Amino acid sequence: MSIRQGIPESSRDSSPRSAAARDDRAHVFHSWSAQATLEPVVVVGARGSRFWDENGKTWLDFSSQLVNVNVGHQHPKLIDAIKEQADKLCTVAPYHANEATSEAARLIAEVAPGDLNKVFFTNGGAEAIENAIRMARHHTGRHKVLAAYRSYHGATAGAIALTGDPRRWGSEPSMPGVVRFWGPYLYRSAFHATTLEEERDRALSHLAEVLTMEGPHNVAAIVLETVVGGSGILVPPDGYLQGVRELCDRHGIVMIADEVMTGFGRCGEWFAVNRWNVTPDLITFAKGVNCGYVPLGGVIISERIAESFAHRPYPGGLTYSGHPLACATAVACINLYKDERIIQHARHLGDEVLGPALEELKQRHPSVGEVRGLGVFWAIELVRHPGTREPLVPYNASGPANAPMAALAGACKERGLWPLIFSNRVHVVPPLTISDQDAREGLAIIDEALAVADRYVSSGGG
Amino acid sequence: MSIRQGIPESSRDSSPRSAAARDDRAHVFHSWSAQATLEPVVVVGARGSRFWDENGKTWLDFSSQLVNVNVGHQHPKLIDAIKEQADKLCTVAPYHANEATSEAARLIAEVAPGDLNKVFFTNGGAEAIENAIRMARHHTGRHKVLAAYRSYHGATAGAIALTGDPRRWGSEPSMPGVVRFWGPYLYRSAFHATTLEEERDRALSHLAEVLTMEGPHNVAAIVLETVVGGSGILVPPDGYLQGVRELCDRHGIVMIADEVMTGFGRCGEWFAVNRWNVTPDLITFAKGVNCGYVPLGGVIISERIAESFAHRPYPGGLTYSGHPLACATAVACINLYKDERIIQHARHLGDEVLGPALEELKQRHPSVGEVRGLGVFWAIELVRHPGTREPLVPYNASGPANAPMAALAGACKERGLWPLIFSNRVHVVPPLTISDQDAREGLAIIDEALAVADRYVSSGGG
Ligand SMILES: Cc1ncc(COP(=O)(O)O)c(C=O)c1O
Ligand SMILES: Cc1ncc(COP(=O)(O)O)c(C=O)c1O
Repeated sequence: MSIRQGIPESSRDSSPRSAAARDDRAHVFHSWSAQATLEPVVVVGARGSRFWDENGKTWLDFSSQLVNVNVGHQHPKLIDAIKEQADKLCTVAPYHANEATSEAARLIAEVAPGDLNKVFFTNGGAEAIENAIRMARHHTGRHKVLAAYRSYHGATAGAIALTGDPRRWGSEPSMPGVVRFWGPYLYRSAFHATTLEEERDRALSHLAEVLTMEGPHNVAAIVLETVVGGSGILVPPDGYLQGVRELCDRHGIVMIADEVMTGFGRCGEWFAVNRWNVTPDLITFAKGVNCGYVPLGGVIISERIAESFAHRPYPGGLTYSGHPLACATAVACINLYKDERIIQHARHLGDEVLGPALEELKQRHPSVGEVRGLGVFWAIELVRHPGTREPLVPYNASGPANAPMAALAGACKERGLWPLIFSNRVHVVPPLTISDQDAREGLAIIDEALAVADRYVSSGGG
Repeated sequence: MSIRQGIPESSRDSSPRSAAARDDRAHVFHSWSAQATLEPVVVVGARGSRFWDENGKTWLDFSSQLVNVNVGHQHPKLIDAIKEQADKLCTVAPYHANEATSEAARLIAEVAPGDLNKVFFTNGGAEAIENAIRMARHHTGRHKVLAAYRSYHGATAGAIALTGDPRRWGSEPSMPGVVRFWGPYLYRSAFHATTLEEERDRALSHLAEVLTMEGPHNVAAIVLETVVGGSGILVPPDGYLQGVRELCDRHGIVMIADEVMTGFGRCGEWFAVNRWNVTPDLITFAKGVNCGYVPLGGVIISERIAESFAHRPYPGGLTYSGHPLACATAVACINLYKDERIIQHARHLGDEVLGPALEELKQRHPSVGEVRGLGVFWAIELVRHPGTREPLVPYNASGPANAPMAALAGACKERGLWPLIFSNRVHVVPPLTISDQDAREGLAIIDEALAVADRYVSSGGG
């Protein structure tokens, strides 16, 4: 893969403040931010695992933006698909049919597990979750939904109500009916477990007990990220998801796997559930389905749940459901995953490059409490002391309290690596198409940057 | 405007069930529908005010799909913009800046009223509303939101809670804190008014009384569609919006104008509020901003509200906020509105073509209770008897109860017109770029089809 191709050789001279930068500060209101504190990088181009800014600086993308450009930036086959469909038909109302939407739905159904054969399209992840919940409630005639702490499901009123991280705090009270449970996370076990098996068993009996206290016959759905993403890259112990599936089956509860971040190859499988051979009733997706070249998300629906809406209307929708331009990109992207064996490459990267290298970093850096992940979906969790496991920065830290992580981010950026940092963790999530060599280059930068974090480890100061 | 250009001359022979139709029924789950009852038209191409299906039938589009293709289908300048931006940069994370996003935000701020200078981008209308509410709540530190009966604001848990039509019923209980009020609608006055002035004054004193009963200091926002769209094309009497603005000013309440359907020319103005010289604090938009060629929506924010988030983080976001490909289409679309004087044409259509012709239809058809609208945004409201004003079909009718409207829709479709029908109304909402001649052709078809509705008028049977 010739990934450097297309990257400008020389720095561009640019005025100290371009029109793009000026207009951004004057007119663009950014997500999750204090607006006056922003000085965003002005991105002018991208290719493969790199993007570059208006000052000519090129960045190795270890973020995949928000973990969405699985096939890398500006893949020529996706761009061709956009252009071709743009010439054909950009948009039609969701009550019509068209070839791109039909084909995308068929291809998604083909790679989805079990009898998840129907697809409801949305524009992104939050809307997918909103609709999955509505389907589960109508299908079961029940109201309550169980969702996990340490999770992110999006920022609309329903999706944020399900979210179990600080991003929810600014939107409460939100949709009623959500009951929170704790998922498995051995490194910081809610159950005082010391082995993976113990963590799994205790997490499952905790979930069963929450169900008992809520009345399982009142519970429409259990929602969880198959592998928790933005809240920590928490890989469930073997057997956990099967256990959740069994609880759902026992009580007629809809199992919703949120695969917005994990789906479409990120975990070295089409869907992360494949790794454990579990078939949920609904899968929510977005991001990797077409890498966000055009906004797209959706819900993959089991035949049984779809059947609930065969003769009574499904009471939900959105103007751009099944958008042809977005769906045409999904078709091209799914074919690309297959043709270029991208998912196999993701598994190789996880098993043979990222996994071993991160394990090795952990040995050498006292600030690294744990590394975990699979495929191209990894986290380095940083601590003040490996023994106490005190996080390098407090939960939801900002300002001075967050200085260690800010310094670490700075050290990565100085060296040309664009990192994705959440709380006390560096998430290692480059495109799935990154070459072994570029992956190693990025890991070498992180290795150097971790020296900054090491300085805060309590034995050595901080 | 040569709108017929590009339309195939001859019918295509096609197998009785194409792959697109088959895959649609096997795999695509459609909005707001009982899935087993669907036989969607397979749209294969479109241009200007027409689209055509796989059987070679060409439709005159009086729906603009879901009132979004304001500049018509497949406008070459928008397609060029998509292709050009696709070559540059399709997607970046919302924490970056880029030229397309910056320029779209600047152009939107330029056409927005007053000091509405900052833009938060979303993928569609529902997400825009969700974020507007969150902004208002944080800005004021208050919780309650007032929203109108006979309104539609989208189908995520927050937007649907604000919605005042039957589409909400399948999603209750939803986001808490919503208080409902009645807006002006003289034809079916909630206030027993007989003149527009009376309706306006009574609607405003009703709103003031609701505020008194709720405690105005508890109210974060009043949300309303500037001209109510999907729930009836209800044009507010002169002075109503000014009155709402004054109530908001008096009590420090955020005025949110939902212009998802009315914005960007639909009402013969950039924004419908311009017609009454009212400046809300937040405007939500989607649809017309880029006609849905790529999913896009957002909130236009006053400087005062943006300032609330200068130094404290705004607690909301989405992966595709400020999507470059979507924003590049908005840039092209806004320039198109200007260069081709589309908004002027919309006003001309309303004042000189649609308005007079619809008024004339009303005179001749006993089933037409009222026609109302402005610009290219009109409704024909159908009744069983002009005296009693009993709707031609009951509120939220389906099945046999809805037969009269189904028959009317069928009569339009037989004649090659694609209508947009809500409840007991035909909405007349072709692209803003439709020629006078095509507009008249469509009206002539509606004229013929109304004979079907006339048969249900009680004097003549039914
Ligand atoms: C697991 C998960 N679900 C849902 C979402 C929300 O997706 P969106 O930002 O497209 O609304 C995200 C976004 O990161 C996610 O990671
Ligand atoms: C006034 C109004 N607000 C919000 C929406 C929701 O927009 P979307 O379907 O893009 O979520 C609509 C959709 O028709 C609308 O008409």
